[in-house]
Amino acid sequence: MFKKILIANRGEIAVRIIRTCKEMGIKTVAVYSEADRDSLHTYLADEAVCIGPPQSGNSYLKIPNILSAAAITGAEAIHPGYGFLAENAEFSEICEESNIKFIGPSPDSIRKMGDKSFAKETMKSVGVPVVPGSDGVVKDVKTAKEVASQIGYPVMLKASAGGGGKGMRIVWEEKEIEKMFQTASSEAEAAFGVPDLYIEKFIENPHHVEIQIMSDRYGNAFHYGERDCSIQRRHQKLIEESPSPLITPEVRQKMCEAALLGVKAVNYEGAGTIEFLVDKYLNFYFIEMNTRIQVEHPVTEMVRNTDLIKQQILVAAGERLDSPPLEPRGHSIEFRINAEDPEHNFRPSPGKIEYLHFPGGFGVRIDSHVYNQYVIPPYYDSLIAKLIVWGTDRKHAIARARRAFEEFAVEGIKTTIPFHQKILENDDFVNGNFDTSFIDKNLNKLMRMS
Amino acid sequence: MFKKILIANRGEIAVRIIRTCKEMGIKTVAVYSEADRDSLHTYLADEAVCIGPPQSGNSYLKIPNILSAAAITGAEAIHPGYGFLAENAEFSEICEESNIKFIGPSPDSIRKMGDKSFAKETMKSVGVPVVPGSDGVVKDVKTAKEVASQIGYPVMLKASAGGGGKGMRIVWEEKEIEKMFQTASSEAEAAFGVPDLYIEKFIENPHHVEIQIMSDRYGNAFHYGERDCSIQRRHQKLIEESPSPLITPEVRQKMCEAALLGVKAVNYEGAGTIEFLVDKYLNFYFIEMNTRIQVEHPVTEMVRNTDLIKQQILVAAGERLDSPPLEPRGHSIEFRINAEDPEHNFRPSPGKIEYLHFPGGFGVRIDSHVYNQYVIPPYYDSLIAKLIVWGTDRKHAIARARRAFEEFAVEGIKTTIPFHQKILENDDFVNGNFDTSFIDKNLNKLMRMS
Repeated sequence: MFKKILIANRGEIAVRIIRTCKEMGIKTVAVYSEADRDSLHTYLADEAVCIGPPQSGNSYLKIPNILSAAAITGAEAIHPGYGFLAENAEFSEICEESNIKFIGPSPDSIRKMGDKSFAKETMKSVGVPVVPGSDGVVKDVKTAKEVASQIGYPVMLKASAGGGGKGMRIVWEEKEIEKMFQTASSEAEAAFGVPDLYIEKFIENPHHVEIQIMSDRYGNAFHYGERDCSIQRRHQKLIEESPSPLITPEVRQKMCEAALLGVKAVNYEGAGTIEFLVDKYLNFYFIEMNTRIQVEHPVTEMVRNTDLIKQQILVAAGERLDSPPLEPRGHSIEFRINAEDPEHNFRPSPGKIEYLHFPGGFGVRIDSHVYNQYVIPPYYDSLIAKLIVWGTDRKHAIARARRAFEEFAVEGIKTTIPFHQKILENDDFVNGNFDTSFIDKNLNKLMRMS
Repeated sequence: MFKKILIANRGEIAVRIIRTCKEMGIKTVAVYSEADRDSLHTYLADEAVCIGPPQSGNSYLKIPNILSAAAITGAEAIHPGYGFLAENAEFSEICEESNIKFIGPSPDSIRKMGDKSFAKETMKSVGVPVVPGSDGVVKDVKTAKEVASQIGYPVMLKASAGGGGKGMRIVWEEKEIEKMFQTASSEAEAAFGVPDLYIEKFIENPHHVEIQIMSDRYGNAFHYGERDCSIQRRHQKLIEESPSPLITPEVRQKMCEAALLGVKAVNYEGAGTIEFLVDKYLNFYFIEMNTRIQVEHPVTEMVRNTDLIKQQILVAAGERLDSPPLEPRGHSIEFRINAEDPEHNFRPSPGKIEYLHFPGGFGVRIDSHVYNQYVIPPYYDSLIAKLIVWGTDRKHAIARARRAFEEFAVEGIKTTIPFHQKILENDDFVNGNFDTSFIDKNLNKLMRMS
C-alpha cells in the first residue's frame, strides 16, 4: 500500500480524499494556491505545499508544480479528485513516466473514453444503445434530411467543434431543417471557425441517470448501481440521488450490464461513471463516460455502505476486486450547497462566513472544506458543502433533508440553501415527477423566496 | 399518528428526539429551564415552554410544570428521553391519567423492571441467568458464609437500600467475610439508615453487554443485537460499540433470546435494554433492565440502519412491529464528549464555547445540542456531544474515529476529546482486549496528555 499520497485538488474533494487516506493510515500531501492557505484541506493534510498563485492555470492545473511537490515530499501516488487534472491524459502519462501512480485510469483509457465519438463507438460496438445520429459530420442539408428522417424527429443539430449551446438547434419537423441547418452552421463557423454539424436524436426531457463502476487491473469490474442527476441548472447538477425514482429494476439491470460491457471493452482501471439519458419510455442512451470520481459519489457510498475513494486507492495499489459491493440499502440524496445568490441569478457570493452551523444527527453527512470565519476565495467554483442524507426510502430521505436544512446556518454569504428548500417543497420533486427540465420549468416558482 | 409531541428533556437527547419528530411530520414542544433558553433544543422545536429555574427539581423533574406545558400546547404525547423522568412510574401514570401518551412502557412495567430484585426474579423465572446470590437480605454472618460458599468466592456484599458503592465490599475468601460483613453493614446503616446486606457473586472484570429490544402492545418483540459498554469510568459509560468485540455469535444469540424472554414475560411495550455482565468465560448474567432509550442507542441505529426513536414513537402510537429489523452491517462506536477536564480529575468545565468545529464526512455522526458561542450552563450533566462513527469493521471504525477527532475543534472549555484520543491509541482497546476495569487500570497512562 502507498505510504504517502498527494492530493492534486482543493475544496471539499481534497478534504474528502484526505479523510480516507487518514483512515487507511496513508500520509497525505496537500497542494494549495496562495488563495487556499486557510482552506481545511491545507490544515488537515500531513504536509502542505504551495504550488502558485490563485489562478488555477498557475497552480492546480500546473503539472510541473504538482510533480515538484510530489518529488519534494516523496509522494508515491497522486489522487486528482474531480475537475482540474482529473481527466487529463497527459497528466496521467507524466505521472506514469515519473514513476508516480496516478489514482485513476491509464492515459490510454482517459483518451479513449474522453473522446466522445470514440466512447460512443466503443459502447455501440458492444451493443449499448447510444443516442442515434449521423456517423460524424453531415455535409449538407440533403444528407441532414436523410439522416433526420431515418432517426426520426425531433433531432438536434450540433456543431462538431463546439459546445456550450453554440451552433446547436433543435429541429422539430422536416420543414424547419433547411433554415436551422444554415443558422446553426453559420453560428458554428462564427464561434469555432468550423461550420461542420452533426445530427443526434433529440431526447425530450430526459432523466440523467449514471452508473458507478469500479474495475481492477485484472479485469474484474463491478457496478454500484445508479445515480439520478436530473435536477440540473444550466447542465450543472444540483441534486443527485440513488436509487433513481424513475427506472424499474429491469431497466436498472440492463443499464448496469451495459455499463460493465463498455468498461470491460476498454480494459478500464479504477472508478468511472457511465452516463445515460433515459427517456420517458425508459429507453436509455449512453452519452459519455467520466473517468474519475464524481461530485455525487457520496449517495452511492451511503446506500452501499462502501467508501469509493478507498476502493479507488486499493485498486490503484494493485488490489483485486474479488467480491461484489454490498447490496443497496435505503435511499440517499445529495444537495450541492453553493456560495451563490439564488435571488440574483445565482451570482457567486464569496467572502467571509461569519457564522456556520452544520446539521447533524442520524442519516446526515456533510462533506465540506469550510468552517466558521473561513473566507471563501473568489477564484474557484462556488461549491462550499454537500449535504448528503440517507433514509429508509425516498420519502424518509426527503423529510430528513428538510429537517437538516432547518438546522443549517450560514451567515455572511449567500447560499443555495433556500433554493434547495424550495425544491424540497415542490410536489413534482417530492413525487419523483421530474426530468432534466425541472429547474427551467420551475425557476420562477423556485426563485420566489418567502 | 400523533400531531404534537412534548419532549420532557434537554440537551442532545431533546435535539435527537426533535429531529425524528420533524422527519415524521410531528410538531414538537420543547420545555426548558431558565438556564436552557439558548439551548439548541429550545430553538429547534416548533414551540418552547419555560418550566422553571435551572435546578432540575424545579423544572425538568417537576411533573406539574411539564404537564401544564403539555396542556397549554395541546401535546398528545410526551417523550421523556433518558434520565430525569424517563423511568419514573408515577410520571408515566400521571400522563396516562391525563390522557397523554407516555412514549415508553406502562407504569406497571416500569415498576416491575425498575425494581431490581423483581426484575431479577422475572428473568430467573424464564430461565435467564442472573448473578447468583442470596434471595434478598442475609440476616447474619453465618448465613452469609453459607450463601457465599454455595455460590463460590469472590462475592460481593451490597447494601440492600443503597447504591453508589456505599456499604459495598468484595470478599475474596471466607476468612475475610466476618470483618467485611460488619464494616459493610455499619456503613450501610450510616449511609441509608438500614444495615441490611445481600450477597452476589462478584464477577471479575466483566464486560458490560446489553441487548436492545423493542416491543409493541400486541406482544411482538424484536431484538436489535448488542452493545458493548465496557469502557466506563466510575460506572459511567464513556465509549460504547456494536457489535461487541468479546462475544461469539452463539453467545450473542443466547443473550438476545434471553432478553426477549424477559421482555415477553412482563408484556413490555416500547424500547428497552436488558443489561448483562459477561465474564471471561462468556457466561452472562442479567443485571438490570433500562425501560427507556439509552444514551448509546445510536450505535445500534448505525449498524441496523434503523431510527430507534422513530420506532419508539410508532409503537407508542399503536403501530405493529411486523417485521424484524435489518441485519446488522459493519461496526459502530460512540464516544461521549463531556465538558470536563481530564487532566484535573474530570472536573466539569462549563462556560462559553469560543470556537467549535465538528468533524464530517462518510461514517461520522454528531449528536449534540451545542454550537459556536454557546454557553454551557453548570447545572446539568456534562455531555456536550456524541461522536458516533461507522466502519465496515472495528478496525475501520477506530481509524475513522481517530481522523474524526483530529478534525474536532472545541475552544473555550475543556473536553474529554484528548482522553478519547488516548484510548484510541491504546493497544488493548484497539485489539478489543478490555473489560470494565480498563479505565481504572490505564488511568495513569491515559491521563498523560502529550
